Amino acid sequence: MREVTIIGAGMVPFGKFPDRSLADLAWPAAKAAIEDAGIDPRKVQAAYCGSVFGGMMSGQRVLARVGVTGIPIINVENACSSSSSALSQAVMAVRAGAYDMVLVVGVEKLTKFGGGTLPLEKEDWEVAQGQVMPALYAMRAKRYMHDFGLTDRQLALVSVKNRANGALNPDAQMRKAVSVEEVLASRPIADPFTLLQCCPTGDGAAALVVCEAGLARQYRPDPVRVLASDLASGRYTPGFRDMTIPEITVRGAREAFEEAGVGPQDIDVAELHDAFSIAELLYYEAFGFCARGEASALLESGATAINGTIAVNPSGGLLAKGHPIGATGAAQVVEIVRQLRGECGKRQVEGARVGLTHATGGGIAGFDHGACCIHIFAR
Amino acid sequence: MREVTIIGAGMVPFGKFPDRSLADLAWPAAKAAIEDAGIDPRKVQAAYCGSVFGGMMSGQRVLARVGVTGIPIINVENACSSSSSALSQAVMAVRAGAYDMVLVVGVEKLTKFGGGTLPLEKEDWEVAQGQVMPALYAMRAKRYMHDFGLTDRQLALVSVKNRANGALNPDAQMRKAVSVEEVLASRPIADPFTLLQCCPTGDGAAALVVCEAGLARQYRPDPVRVLASDLASGRYTPGFRDMTIPEITVRGAREAFEEAGVGPQDIDVAELHDAFSIAELLYYEAFGFCARGEASALLESGATAINGTIAVNPSGGLLAKGHPIGATGAAQVVEIVRQLRGECGKRQVEGARVGLTHATGGGIAGFDHGACCIHIFAR
Repeated sequence: MREVTIIGAGMVPFGKFPDRSLADLAWPAAKAAIEDAGIDPRKVQAAYCGSVFGGMMSGQRVLARVGVTGIPIINVENACSSSSSALSQAVMAVRAGAYDMVLVVGVEKLTKFGGGTLPLEKEDWEVAQGQVMPALYAMRAKRYMHDFGLTDRQLALVSVKNRANGALNPDAQMRKAVSVEEVLASRPIADPFTLLQCCPTGDGAAALVVCEAGLARQYRPDPVRVLASDLASGRYTPGFRDMTIPEITVRGAREAFEEAGVGPQDIDVAELHDAFSIAELLYYEAFGFCARGEASALLESGATAINGTIAVNPSGGLLAKGHPIGATGAAQVVEIVRQLRGECGKRQVEGARVGLTHATGGGIAGFDHGACCIHIFAR
Repeated sequence: MREVTIIGAGMVPFGKFPDRSLADLAWPAAKAAIEDAGIDPRKVQAAYCGSVFGGMMSGQRVLARVGVTGIPIINVENACSSSSSALSQAVMAVRAGAYDMVLVVGVEKLTKFGGGTLPLEKEDWEVAQGQVMPALYAMRAKRYMHDFGLTDRQLALVSVKNRANGALNPDAQMRKAVSVEEVLASRPIADPFTLLQCCPTGDGAAALVVCEAGLARQYRPDPVRVLASDLASGRYTPGFRDMTIPEITVRGAREAFEEAGVGPQDIDVAELHDAFSIAELLYYEAFGFCARGEASALLESGATAINGTIAVNPSGGLLAKGHPIGATGAAQVVEIVRQLRGECGKRQVEGARVGLTHATGGGIAGFDHGACCIHIFAR
């Protein structure tokens, strides 16, 4: 297998843009990634486009606008991990020698639904029972609080950290730091979550240029190496399941660390899937950044702050940068590429050498209908 | 690159099943393919699921029902070529050595829209101008009639042939042979098309097991070899475009024949994308089965009948077997696998050794927003 790098990264600021078409929204991200890579668009040999609700031929519609036509274009859907799954396919294709240069795009326009709950699959019996995402993560939070004594105030600190980070990111949808009191006083959504503990819905796009390592330095002096690319789906397991342990992420993390030849202690910066405040804490443990039950202590120690030992969600994460679902995975990688290149200004994680991204989702998020995609990068 | 084979093929009869969920509809096809291959479902290392309107996590929802969980599952959308694009990704992955055994599923449930026009992308300006598929193909037909003197009666003969074939296929949605008079007397849709010259909408699913060639004979004595797997998207070309020449198919055919090391004269049986009667004639010429302007003469000669030199759409094609769009590409391959194995009973193409499948679609079908996926197989 050949080595693979990322040589281009671009995104548009996340937000609400109901008047823009999907293609209008996304082509500037694709153009930015291509320009960042310093390549002629005609060098792109194939493209993968991740979107959940983008509709028929999303990638073709977006890429026609930047002159990337004629090549194989594959649209990929894997819920919240759609564009990270698209990246996994691009990495596989370049590793295998099928292509040398592949474009990845992630795009979503959630404002087309006019706000409110997204149209989840009614065929999913858990959704039909009311287990939409806020409810599902709220139950996880309640269980974790019961098991480990986590308090409402400790839980709210996740949002305080990520909103503070988002305030430093010009691409973030939410750019105002908030206090723990403000988080707790915001409107209730699903106990124990208040509004500021839930990621916003919105629109956005992000793009990446994936290039075979041997060619990369023709275009940029600082290619970011892909050390691991892991895609998993949920495993059907009858009987009791501990909903505070995201099995799919635990398994994916183990596979990704093994593939990369690094461990949790080697990660300098990570973008984790903090769709709700509790999620970031559960994922600290799933990745082995701390032991079981110690996530809140890790957060309170400052270890996951921008100047900590494992900076988590310096971009603001889903909670502040936003979560236009098909765009999220690619946007996480944009942040890690910029962090490893040292381009992040006030939110720069000093000396970051190894970074990780994690996007997971699906009907029952982590069980048999889930998907989880993890990448590890190094400069 | 390693050699790749198909060792399992299964589908459910196409039709209208509004009371079945997507997963209910599709799992029997996946199970049939796995049983046809004679493998333990746990041998499947990855899965690609093609669907257009299947919604979030189609593949995960379907495959959980046959115990295929935990592995990478990637949902692929490429309009009418969704599940053939899914196959192209599976073939690439197995060729590259990423996996030895991959499952491909195609599924669509169009009855969920309650009939009528499908929800095409309003952002596509040609759709917004009323150029839905029947209108677009009708213009192509009118132009072709103008250029080459094709008559209404000659055009109707495509439907007569394919409906006759469908009458021999227990998996076809339309299983009644029709006369040329019946075709011409059916209700007008978009001049020159009558109802029987348009593929029906419906529901369906099909599945394939893709296996590395060296392992294939452990499971079956008759693996079908994949000689070519080509995926193209439309090319943006300003200025005049001759709409009777499907450029994307012409280009894809050239690439596929080159990859396979065969030419049009070597094809014994083909499943072509006959969404409307004119389509099959245009594609005869695009594949070089005859010269430009001679498609109708080829049809009338009987060469593309089941007992002809190049049997086209022995399954009944989209016109009779049906066109649940995400399932179509995989179902075409199911037919070719069965033909090359000699399993097709009354519609068997005697001595078929080399077969071809062709699925194409997209917003403006063949120009910049199009996708086209062609495979060539041999026993």
